[in-house]
Amino acid sequence: MNLIFTHHPADALNTIVKEMSPAGIAIITDTNTHKLCAEPLREACPALADAPIITIKAGDTHKDITSLTSVWEQMQAAGLTRKSAVVNVGGGMVTDLGGFAAATFKRGIRFVNAPTTLLSAVDAAVGGKTGINFGGLKNEIGTFRDADAVVISTSWLATLPSSELRSGYAEMLKHGLIDSPEEYRRLIGFDISAADFTGLLPLVERSVLVKKRIVEQDPHEHGLRRALNLGHTAGHAFESMAMRRERPVPHGYAVAWGLVVDLVLSHMLFKFPSDMLRELAAYVRRIYGVMPISCDDYPALLELMSHDKKNATPGAINFTLLEAPGKIKIDCIAEKRDIEAALDIFRDLMGI
Amino acid sequence: MNLIFTHHPADALNTIVKEMSPAGIAIITDTNTHKLCAEPLREACPALADAPIITIKAGDTHKDITSLTSVWEQMQAAGLTRKSAVVNVGGGMVTDLGGFAAATFKRGIRFVNAPTTLLSAVDAAVGGKTGINFGGLKNEIGTFRDADAVVISTSWLATLPSSELRSGYAEMLKHGLIDSPEEYRRLIGFDISAADFTGLLPLVERSVLVKKRIVEQDPHEHGLRRALNLGHTAGHAFESMAMRRERPVPHGYAVAWGLVVDLVLSHMLFKFPSDMLRELAAYVRRIYGVMPISCDDYPALLELMSHDKKNATPGAINFTLLEAPGKIKIDCIAEKRDIEAALDIFRDLMGI
Repeated sequence: MNLIFTHHPADALNTIVKEMSPAGIAIITDTNTHKLCAEPLREACPALADAPIITIKAGDTHKDITSLTSVWEQMQAAGLTRKSAVVNVGGGMVTDLGGFAAATFKRGIRFVNAPTTLLSAVDAAVGGKTGINFGGLKNEIGTFRDADAVVISTSWLATLPSSELRSGYAEMLKHGLIDSPEEYRRLIGFDISAADFTGLLPLVERSVLVKKRIVEQDPHEHGLRRALNLGHTAGHAFESMAMRRERPVPHGYAVAWGLVVDLVLSHMLFKFPSDMLRELAAYVRRIYGVMPISCDDYPALLELMSHDKKNATPGAINFTLLEAPGKIKIDCIAEKRDIEAALDIFRDLMGI
Repeated sequence: MNLIFTHHPADALNTIVKEMSPAGIAIITDTNTHKLCAEPLREACPALADAPIITIKAGDTHKDITSLTSVWEQMQAAGLTRKSAVVNVGGGMVTDLGGFAAATFKRGIRFVNAPTTLLSAVDAAVGGKTGINFGGLKNEIGTFRDADAVVISTSWLATLPSSELRSGYAEMLKHGLIDSPEEYRRLIGFDISAADFTGLLPLVERSVLVKKRIVEQDPHEHGLRRALNLGHTAGHAFESMAMRRERPVPHGYAVAWGLVVDLVLSHMLFKFPSDMLRELAAYVRRIYGVMPISCDDYPALLELMSHDKKNATPGAINFTLLEAPGKIKIDCIAEKRDIEAALDIFRDLMGI
């Protein structure tokens, strides 16, 4: 895969498309990114001058079979053949759905991802996961298929609200913790609230390469790839609880809080260094704030954690934990009383 | 891939499913094969005792997004997980659609094919092509994904009309011609109209292995795999013309006639031995009869051939030809006057 990090995404994309020399090309985007990203990109790329823009409705609720069918129809109407290609311009919803449309059109044509949010740049562009939601379940239908090229640039990010940036940065913190003490320190030393997009690009590059290394060692999620679940067992529980309260939080915020819970458990079970735990908790509290929970919420949180699809054994709750940054322990089963103790310490660290 | 040829398909399937030990299993079949094949198979397989049967409407017109969506819904309703599997029991329509449903459910679960027609045993079970028709085009949406196991048995075939058997046998003749003089002679020496299913199984096995060898050398159809197009350029033209006349012919009949045309061209351009050509023409005439065409039909046939998706250059007509059985020439461009001459000789050989 051709993976490019650049401050000049239009130039990079133009070169890539010229080299692919596809028999026809189309752009897939959504109503959020159509005017802000897809049209300017087409204007700046001679190789995309004749590309029709296929636009789907923005939002995860539209990552569905109706949008997918409409994209396939428009690919047909654009006269795309087996030798054609598409460029997905947008957040994770567009790269997921557009990637799946391309992976299945005429049994698979080439596609390029141009992720326009920090979360999709860090998380969705590498790993080969494509797909749609179906029957009320997220990513229920899909396939593993790498993009032929990914163009990553922080120059798209200036148009995003700060909560989007913070949300994506939580996945970067996760990658840093999975990778090494050095990587983790580099991230904790960067102030994502200051919006220095030039300084952010090399951090994004390192973060994507951490994920790429892990995915390449375990493309189908049988072992090591579960390291990427760090922060996500508790994180998904926070996210679902916020949804139930009808006060939803961005995915990355929930992951950031989940990372603190997982490091508390890591400290309790594997002696993860307490100074690093305190440091992360302070960073998370400053950037993401807190979600108010009390001990009355523990049963509901435990219940939500036990339904997580990462649990192989019914009833048991499965975590990815760390002995230290870079020292990963997958498939850790934590007891109910340990999780409750960890939530006590989490609330203490976060001042809830 | 686990590829089994057997006179006892239920026993073989039972062993395979027990070894897979899936977390849940379902059978996918169609209204033709539900009662005749799927139910008896489930009764004879203890490992399938609890498998729900997902039934789609029979016929290529139902190999569509509506049937696919319904299969995905029923897979969800059956509680299938990433560790589950499905068994596709039916002809090529069921193995194509069921294979695609499995390849995309939760980003891909395991599946077993039990083809119940000769054509699907020989052609659809190996090669990894899965998919559905879409927007009026055949196999427009799909993916390349091998079944985890294929159970091939001629014991299903007794219930089929003789035209189905003859149709499938044309693909076997094609494989014999692609493979070697010995393989070709073995097939031409077998009387498919006599319905000796025990004697047929080893021929099917050899035929599938020819296709498997070719597909393994060229899984994504970039070169050698086009050898499998032998007989199909003229064959598709005959098939389409019969459709236009509202007197449709089975696919394999059109392929059998197409094989004769291609061998005539092979004789004209590459000195394919004339005795073998005459021998094949006599076999085809006896088993498949003839389709009445006159020289008035040549312009329409040439027009249909030039629209074939195998043509890379607009206007040029692309054939797979042979110097001799086993000596393949792919990407042969034939001139209009050569094709017309070949059709003259074809009519002469077939007594039209």
